[in-house]
Amino acid sequence: MKFARVGPRGAEIPVLVHDQRLFSLQSLTADIDGAFLATGGPAKAAAALAAGELTEVPADGVRYGAPIARPSAVIGIGQNYAAHAAESGSLPPEQPIIFLKTPNTVSGPNDPVTIPHGSTKTDWEVELGVVIGKTASYLDSKEAAREYIAGYVTVNDLSERDFQLNISGGQWSKGKSFAGFCPAGPYLVTPDEVDAGNLRLRSWINGEPRQDSTTAGMVFDVDTLIHDLSQYLVLEPGDLVCTGTPEGVGLSGRFPYLKAGDVLEIEVEGLGRQRQDFLS
Amino acid sequence: MKFARVGPRGAEIPVLVHDQRLFSLQSLTADIDGAFLATGGPAKAAAALAAGELTEVPADGVRYGAPIARPSAVIGIGQNYAAHAAESGSLPPEQPIIFLKTPNTVSGPNDPVTIPHGSTKTDWEVELGVVIGKTASYLDSKEAAREYIAGYVTVNDLSERDFQLNISGGQWSKGKSFAGFCPAGPYLVTPDEVDAGNLRLRSWINGEPRQDSTTAGMVFDVDTLIHDLSQYLVLEPGDLVCTGTPEGVGLSGRFPYLKAGDVLEIEVEGLGRQRQDFLS
Repeated sequence: MKFARVGPRGAEIPVLVHDQRLFSLQSLTADIDGAFLATGGPAKAAAALAAGELTEVPADGVRYGAPIARPSAVIGIGQNYAAHAAESGSLPPEQPIIFLKTPNTVSGPNDPVTIPHGSTKTDWEVELGVVIGKTASYLDSKEAAREYIAGYVTVNDLSERDFQLNISGGQWSKGKSFAGFCPAGPYLVTPDEVDAGNLRLRSWINGEPRQDSTTAGMVFDVDTLIHDLSQYLVLEPGDLVCTGTPEGVGLSGRFPYLKAGDVLEIEVEGLGRQRQDFLS
Repeated sequence: MKFARVGPRGAEIPVLVHDQRLFSLQSLTADIDGAFLATGGPAKAAAALAAGELTEVPADGVRYGAPIARPSAVIGIGQNYAAHAAESGSLPPEQPIIFLKTPNTVSGPNDPVTIPHGSTKTDWEVELGVVIGKTASYLDSKEAAREYIAGYVTVNDLSERDFQLNISGGQWSKGKSFAGFCPAGPYLVTPDEVDAGNLRLRSWINGEPRQDSTTAGMVFDVDTLIHDLSQYLVLEPGDLVCTGTPEGVGLSGRFPYLKAGDVLEIEVEGLGRQRQDFLS
């Protein structure tokens, strides 16, 4: 199943996406949030669709918001692809690197992004996003992690490299938390529809290719990450985990950073494509 | 004015604290949250108290929750006292160091804290907490910051030093985000009642003194911090900024870390005292 949230910013309605048609879930839930995911909402939505109980809404020209309501936490994983770690000047990590973005960074997949004041190093990061389906703390094993995953989203972990690396004592969040720095969606896709361990991730700037890898290249796979995170914090339903980006970002020195007027597109196989206009 | 939230965990009611008596604010607001702070709630509460419109509630034996509802972001400032930076092996920072804690770390000031599994380095940090009163982005000056501050709280930025420093590529959040790792309160105190630039901060373990400094020792004062943060993220009403801890923590090597059975007390002058029992 695919879920989305469509409509004006701050007034999105929850929908189920079926055969490229949109069906309102407003008869079932006010939003696609932690409560919906933790209380069997997706199964109820499937049943309601099958029973013909959902009202179709127009799909043409609609704005997509992030496919989940604002999370309680947005958790990033650093250097989770060996070639990206290398282009960042690091060896692959021995344990998952955790950092956080403020939850108010989450925005729609096609919303324009304003380059931060004074930025010269705004960078792109296509990533597989994992949405948590129920509260996870001290999971026993990586095998146990799977049942805590509600689904997957395309996510762009935008970063300002100078602010991230050089002016906060090495703590990355200062370059990770600008408004609009976590475009998510368009779809939340349930785990049965994708093989999270083998999805192609790509990005383009002004139509020219940048990143092109697969999630098979992760240093720590999704289940390992969720198990590991649960040892250090309490994951809540609706939380978003950004699982790291592959090689091909601006930090590599191979490409110029983003500037006003650029168009960034990113796509994770099976999860949909994003397109952001960058503004000054 | 002093505000608090009292009652069982997850079912706290908002109160105004006056002459050591508690007055329910339930006729004015469901909670002490961003919306209350951003829409003139404190002034309305003062007017209602003066008009005799608030109902007194029992104060004896009541549990205090955090004095604010769960924030959208909990922002920590690293090494903001020179002597603490030195005991951590660092020079004072040239610009504020920002890191984040997950918002679900916030707990009541006297709630017991469970030491994380496998932890040998659970550490205390008494801090002045700043609660944001209205949305702040790209403030023009440090002088402008003051009007964005709703009040101050005592806050304990609990940290697991091994997880913080050694197993997450140097990113601190892995040791900062355990359940209960951000006791806040008991009171939210409005800015007119304290001189944030000159408050004594103290901590004790099992009655023995540990930290004893004042906020006059901050590398970056409160107004500078709020101005700086607003250049890198959007601060929202109800957000909590933990402004850094002075010297005298376990990381210094001068004291043993916390263990089960220990009792930690911390106090910021004018903002109230916390007491946490540590459990295994």
